[in-house]
Amino acid sequence: MSYFKDIPPIQYEGPDSDNEFAYRHYDPNEVVMGKRMEDHLRLAVAYWHSLAYEGGDPFGGRTFERPWYGDDMAAARVKADAAFDMFGVLNVPFFCFHDADVRPEGDSFAESRRNLEEICDVFADKMQQTGTKLLWGTANMFTHRRWMAGAATNPDPEIFAYAAATVKACMDVTHRLGGENYVLWGGREGYESLLNTDLTREAEQAGAFLTKVVDYKHKIGFKGTILIEPKPQEPSKHQYDFDVGTIYGFLKRFGLENEVKLNIEQGHAILAGHSFEHELALAGSLGLLGSIDMNRNDYQSGWDTDQFPNNVPEVALAYYEVLRAGGFTTGGTNFDARVRRQSLDPEDLVLSHVGAIDICARGLKAAAAMLENGGLEKMRAERYAGWDNEASQAMLKSESLDQIAARVEETNLNPQPRSGRQERLENWVSRFV
Amino acid sequence: MSYFKDIPPIQYEGPDSDNEFAYRHYDPNEVVMGKRMEDHLRLAVAYWHSLAYEGGDPFGGRTFERPWYGDDMAAARVKADAAFDMFGVLNVPFFCFHDADVRPEGDSFAESRRNLEEICDVFADKMQQTGTKLLWGTANMFTHRRWMAGAATNPDPEIFAYAAATVKACMDVTHRLGGENYVLWGGREGYESLLNTDLTREAEQAGAFLTKVVDYKHKIGFKGTILIEPKPQEPSKHQYDFDVGTIYGFLKRFGLENEVKLNIEQGHAILAGHSFEHELALAGSLGLLGSIDMNRNDYQSGWDTDQFPNNVPEVALAYYEVLRAGGFTTGGTNFDARVRRQSLDPEDLVLSHVGAIDICARGLKAAAAMLENGGLEKMRAERYAGWDNEASQAMLKSESLDQIAARVEETNLNPQPRSGRQERLENWVSRFV
Amino acid sequence: MSYFKDIPPIQYEGPDSDNEFAYRHYDPNEVVMGKRMEDHLRLAVAYWHSLAYEGGDPFGGRTFERPWYGDDMAAARVKADAAFDMFGVLNVPFFCFHDADVRPEGDSFAESRRNLEEICDVFADKMQQTGTKLLWGTANMFTHRRWMAGAATNPDPEIFAYAAATVKACMDVTHRLGGENYVLWGGREGYESLLNTDLTREAEQAGAFLTKVVDYKHKIGFKGTILIEPKPQEPSKHQYDFDVGTIYGFLKRFGLENEVKLNIEQGHAILAGHSFEHELALAGSLGLLGSIDMNRNDYQSGWDTDQFPNNVPEVALAYYEVLRAGGFTTGGTNFDARVRRQSLDPEDLVLSHVGAIDICARGLKAAAAMLENGGLEKMRAERYAGWDNEASQAMLKSESLDQIAARVEETNLNPQPRSGRQERLENWVSRFV
Amino acid sequence: MSYFKDIPPIQYEGPDSDNEFAYRHYDPNEVVMGKRMEDHLRLAVAYWHSLAYEGGDPFGGRTFERPWYGDDMAAARVKADAAFDMFGVLNVPFFCFHDADVRPEGDSFAESRRNLEEICDVFADKMQQTGTKLLWGTANMFTHRRWMAGAATNPDPEIFAYAAATVKACMDVTHRLGGENYVLWGGREGYESLLNTDLTREAEQAGAFLTKVVDYKHKIGFKGTILIEPKPQEPSKHQYDFDVGTIYGFLKRFGLENEVKLNIEQGHAILAGHSFEHELALAGSLGLLGSIDMNRNDYQSGWDTDQFPNNVPEVALAYYEVLRAGGFTTGGTNFDARVRRQSLDPEDLVLSHVGAIDICARGLKAAAAMLENGGLEKMRAERYAGWDNEASQAMLKSESLDQIAARVEETNLNPQPRSGRQERLENWVSRFV
Repeated sequence: MSYFKDIPPIQYEGPDSDNEFAYRHYDPNEVVMGKRMEDHLRLAVAYWHSLAYEGGDPFGGRTFERPWYGDDMAAARVKADAAFDMFGVLNVPFFCFHDADVRPEGDSFAESRRNLEEICDVFADKMQQTGTKLLWGTANMFTHRRWMAGAATNPDPEIFAYAAATVKACMDVTHRLGGENYVLWGGREGYESLLNTDLTREAEQAGAFLTKVVDYKHKIGFKGTILIEPKPQEPSKHQYDFDVGTIYGFLKRFGLENEVKLNIEQGHAILAGHSFEHELALAGSLGLLGSIDMNRNDYQSGWDTDQFPNNVPEVALAYYEVLRAGGFTTGGTNFDARVRRQSLDPEDLVLSHVGAIDICARGLKAAAAMLENGGLEKMRAERYAGWDNEASQAMLKSESLDQIAARVEETNLNPQPRSGRQERLENWVSRFV
Repeated sequence: MSYFKDIPPIQYEGPDSDNEFAYRHYDPNEVVMGKRMEDHLRLAVAYWHSLAYEGGDPFGGRTFERPWYGDDMAAARVKADAAFDMFGVLNVPFFCFHDADVRPEGDSFAESRRNLEEICDVFADKMQQTGTKLLWGTANMFTHRRWMAGAATNPDPEIFAYAAATVKACMDVTHRLGGENYVLWGGREGYESLLNTDLTREAEQAGAFLTKVVDYKHKIGFKGTILIEPKPQEPSKHQYDFDVGTIYGFLKRFGLENEVKLNIEQGHAILAGHSFEHELALAGSLGLLGSIDMNRNDYQSGWDTDQFPNNVPEVALAYYEVLRAGGFTTGGTNFDARVRRQSLDPEDLVLSHVGAIDICARGLKAAAAMLENGGLEKMRAERYAGWDNEASQAMLKSESLDQIAARVEETNLNPQPRSGRQERLENWVSRFV
Repeated sequence: MSYFKDIPPIQYEGPDSDNEFAYRHYDPNEVVMGKRMEDHLRLAVAYWHSLAYEGGDPFGGRTFERPWYGDDMAAARVKADAAFDMFGVLNVPFFCFHDADVRPEGDSFAESRRNLEEICDVFADKMQQTGTKLLWGTANMFTHRRWMAGAATNPDPEIFAYAAATVKACMDVTHRLGGENYVLWGGREGYESLLNTDLTREAEQAGAFLTKVVDYKHKIGFKGTILIEPKPQEPSKHQYDFDVGTIYGFLKRFGLENEVKLNIEQGHAILAGHSFEHELALAGSLGLLGSIDMNRNDYQSGWDTDQFPNNVPEVALAYYEVLRAGGFTTGGTNFDARVRRQSLDPEDLVLSHVGAIDICARGLKAAAAMLENGGLEKMRAERYAGWDNEASQAMLKSESLDQIAARVEETNLNPQPRSGRQERLENWVSRFV
Repeated sequence: MSYFKDIPPIQYEGPDSDNEFAYRHYDPNEVVMGKRMEDHLRLAVAYWHSLAYEGGDPFGGRTFERPWYGDDMAAARVKADAAFDMFGVLNVPFFCFHDADVRPEGDSFAESRRNLEEICDVFADKMQQTGTKLLWGTANMFTHRRWMAGAATNPDPEIFAYAAATVKACMDVTHRLGGENYVLWGGREGYESLLNTDLTREAEQAGAFLTKVVDYKHKIGFKGTILIEPKPQEPSKHQYDFDVGTIYGFLKRFGLENEVKLNIEQGHAILAGHSFEHELALAGSLGLLGSIDMNRNDYQSGWDTDQFPNNVPEVALAYYEVLRAGGFTTGGTNFDARVRRQSLDPEDLVLSHVGAIDICARGLKAAAAMLENGGLEKMRAERYAGWDNEASQAMLKSESLDQIAARVEETNLNPQPRSGRQERLENWVSRFV
């Protein structure tokens, strides 16, 4: 019997509904800027947070009691049943997973791989039956003790080899399940102490590894996007994929900037000292915006809290950047969020997603309205309009410092600042959120 | 009469001296790793903090009373006298300055430039007489209201032009004074609000500007190093030169990674969420380590406190990275630090430097001792030794994911983690600091 | 001619208005929970941010050009004219000021006091004419260099005396102008360095000073509330009025917990590591909630950014705590917020307030709707319902540890956790914001 | 056979020793300020970090492999053997423990209690044989799922009862083992979400609970000190025992300020936005300084990293405050620190303590030297000397605001600021560290 048997399928009932088990704002079929909302948002449930997380934190153990906890294939199948039941209750089109979320660790690499393949057979059937799709697959190379000093960047080449084999296996099943992307998050690709770390070697290892991943993608004909997920720290003291700007430099260094895009998470942006919209806008500007991990971080906590989003103004600015960059292609909105460890009930698991999905719907609609109105883009264009003439472009592109300096003196140039109008723009945005 | 007339020249008296006005650890002539300490540290006083800062903070005005405050050339000359008196009292070999620190703003660009040139004539004489040298010059493109929305990245091309002329003038005098580097710090090259900002345009402007700077350097035959100084924010909400990793990407994007190096500051590293030694080690690893701005940031304050360093263990780790990278060539140790606004007296100005110089001397000596001992490098090499054979290198450089994966399964590879020995390394370091 | 001559009076036009110079949500006469919105919010403009701030920041000087800048009484009168013009344009019922915002510093204490009294005569006339009222007065004891080491907590008793005289003068004019509160914010009551600080003495000085303030209030028959404003740091490294919890302890120590309440600011709450609603709820719980300084802090900046609020969900939670505590009595909503230094124009000054006032109106209405609905309070009551019986209360009030322990063993007590339902509550809140 | 069989007893060998397994600075018998170093520092090993921690972090599981892992009494006895072996190897006089560290959870409260008592019989024998003493005992009321919403502050009175029984049992064994203190740390006494929390009720519960603890102490004749340990957050979003200032207010509210003292931890101070020395100095000033948890927090990580201390200048300032407050009476130095999860080997466990103990020894000796020299205290006294006369004291104690104000005007008082000499004091401190 389904773990969610007492919970009705969540359907759109409109903003005035008083039903806790309904969408008020998310109507998959509502057309926004010429596209169904479902096709804009491309929502995905994260297997790890919703199925594999047990309610632990650094100071306490498991609080949840789910019938699928266990470390054998039978438990993995019960978990898969619950997962697809939940996807159905929520009516979301996608899910995402790590290998370690879905299958028990085997006694050998080969057994772990076979376990993964076996459970992916189960997924394939269920996906066929339900229409649920895979947004992305990935490998968990941070939980097991073997990864404690990194995967690709490990001082031990045997671990590098094990990591390569692991990613290959995960790419294979992602490809087989029609995954639209493959994600790499390097939670242990960094260091605990600079004292025992060789930054030069580790960067070369990381570059070589990513190159192999890209090569393998082409070899097997995987059409999805390879995505890197930035995070500055936690679990490591310092992680190499610190933020969008850092990863851009890494990709340029290894000539991979046209092969790889980014999966950007709000919580990670905040830990790196950026707003979510900054990271999205920068990725958009660099042509690297791939997909998003939607969550929120507690602003008073210095670690990754992975909470469900609940702030429409913030979410609207995020989707504004997504839409400005052209919207998602292979990417989507993965809820990298988990219920708090006191939220014990199946209702909590479902309703946390329901609330978050409505927040995303509101955010998307506000973002679309802002973009369709065009006020912000117009103002921005006006602010830089002085550059839109031949003289300015000539200065930018071909004049030398001394040529410009000579002109400054000749014309006795004395430029006057103009208002940046920040608050007026903020007021404008507030009309839409 | 000198502002410092009551203060004796500071001389080395050894660690047991009880004299507040003496160096206990900084003996310029002491040989460390085959080089005089003065030639290692290449200490510089910052004109802005020591001469131009008036004791203000965001909640309060001027507290200091210096005879050289004023905004005409006469005051600028009094200031220059005091500056060189202070350099003499401290016996430091270098100083650094912005244009705005040393000359009054004129009514026109040309007048400002002439003021700068005139005061640089004064400097040239004094440098000749005293032997004091210029570590680097730079342009202040953040204080005047014209820069409020950026210099090179301003939405207004006239400001870009004014910035170009300003940098040209500053490079000219730096070149004339034999400056060993030219620094760019982009305090306003960033944004206050993403809403009114076009990241794509501004990045292109920044790239074009820096290219012009490099071209001009070659044109005038300036042999010094062009340095960019990373800082993540403050005054701007977000600054483009966020940290070492970000700047590396920027340089790669515009093909300038072999033309420009970095001036790295402890306080800026901390604001970006990094340790000082991380930023230095990363820059070293990327071949970008140029010079350092030595100070400390209060760990409980979220802004740039620019305090004099006082923590030997931290300073030792910083110089360890400098020495590992080969030591300074054109770069040096600039005290980007200011006395607290309650430190009103001339003694405070001098003794703050004295204490900091001794801290640097202790840090350098500890760093040299660690490097000469070699324990840390040996351990690091051992940790990665598994990579130092043909098979590992072949895997890294030429094997594909599926080749590696096949081998993992064939050999039933099951790598075991080994201790990272962090605390033992920390204990080892503690022996030297 | 008014500085705001080109700006029409701001009037309520409803949410669909396209007019930038209109309120969309703030209708002073709209009745919310039985009270006019104006009487709920009790909005006040801050003289310092709107009239006295010149656009400087730690890295740059004045950017604004206002006709009233100057340091004589004539300029102060022009400033007063502009202030009341602006209050009129905005139609806000209150303003707030420090002595230093409104009058030039005199050559002696007596002259400064007379300047203050003279400008307050001007205020009295204008208040009579316009109906604008004074929410609170306060003394600026942080800008002038004499305060650099504190006012009441200064190591120098002469400064303590000067502070006492200053507060007396400010209380006198506040009383005369019918101010509804008198505020103390101790920006320099703290330390820059623990090394030169005697915490014990300084606490005693602070306690004695506040006791004198309370005594003087009673002596002159001032009926307003004495308010302390918490802030953890900035400008000082550490400020004694760190947060609500700390001030509660201070008031208890000196027996003043029934004489003094708090003025709580969002930006200060955040710098102290708290959410705004936490500080408000705690103050409410302790009976200390007096008034609020409404602004927002940039979550990526580690200093006090004093921006106008723009996030309705956050503001709604703040007013929810205000309403739960019974709403304002003498307190109100002071905009302790300033336009960004790039916002040069008179329109920026006015429209920043307009946007913020609308945000407050939306927040208040959402808060009232939540409170009237009662869902949150009902759930909270249910969660603690186990305590609402005699046995639980007896245990709480009179049983000893060993009595309780005996019962635990006798009954083999094994309590089971219940869901905290956080996400469901967040969803519930989202319906209202 | 002992887990530490390959590790020799650590003995003092002096600063020039090259032996990794030796104390260089910690000589228990060295006399510092008239007292043996062992009696000053009163060092304690934390059972939880050194014996119970398994190497997990939020993103990864157990990395260590200790023979005593398990959840039955047999494993608990093996663990106890290893613990006392380790205490012997280190030659530390004290240890500390939570109930959950030392005994398996039983099927009922009574069984858990009996398990605890049984293992404490083992401890009693070992303490007798080895001379190791108990610095403090405490109850773990945060790991088990029953505590997820708090212990004393739980919405469910049954959990309150279970907490009361738990603390009674732990106080009983602490008393029986001659523990010198009993500690309460409220990791779950706070909230995850203000929305489901009743601050008023929870504060009353906390006050009633602590009152019962104090009453029970007197009832059983426990002569040790009851200690509360401040921490601002983690695991909870907000913890009620935020910092020293907050707890002072709490104790005053419930009239317990003479019954309870504080156990202060560096990492917790930092998370609360304070320096360690601030919290110690404040506790000293309020008469609340009881004991310390010595560790360090990574300054770039926003969570509690519980690392072994390695920075002598910081540790010296901490012990300076301890010595100024009279030194420890019942309190001591507990290493609330754990090896990093990559530090797998028994050597890591021992040597991490060895390094930290030497850092403490250096810190203590530097602190004693500074106190014996007296320079800092002398300067501080001079800075406040203006208060040491009758007129100043009369003003402080008996003059009213208007009396003081009248005098300010009569004497035309115009106080001048004096230098705070912060850098000179920092230089002075640097001579000793």
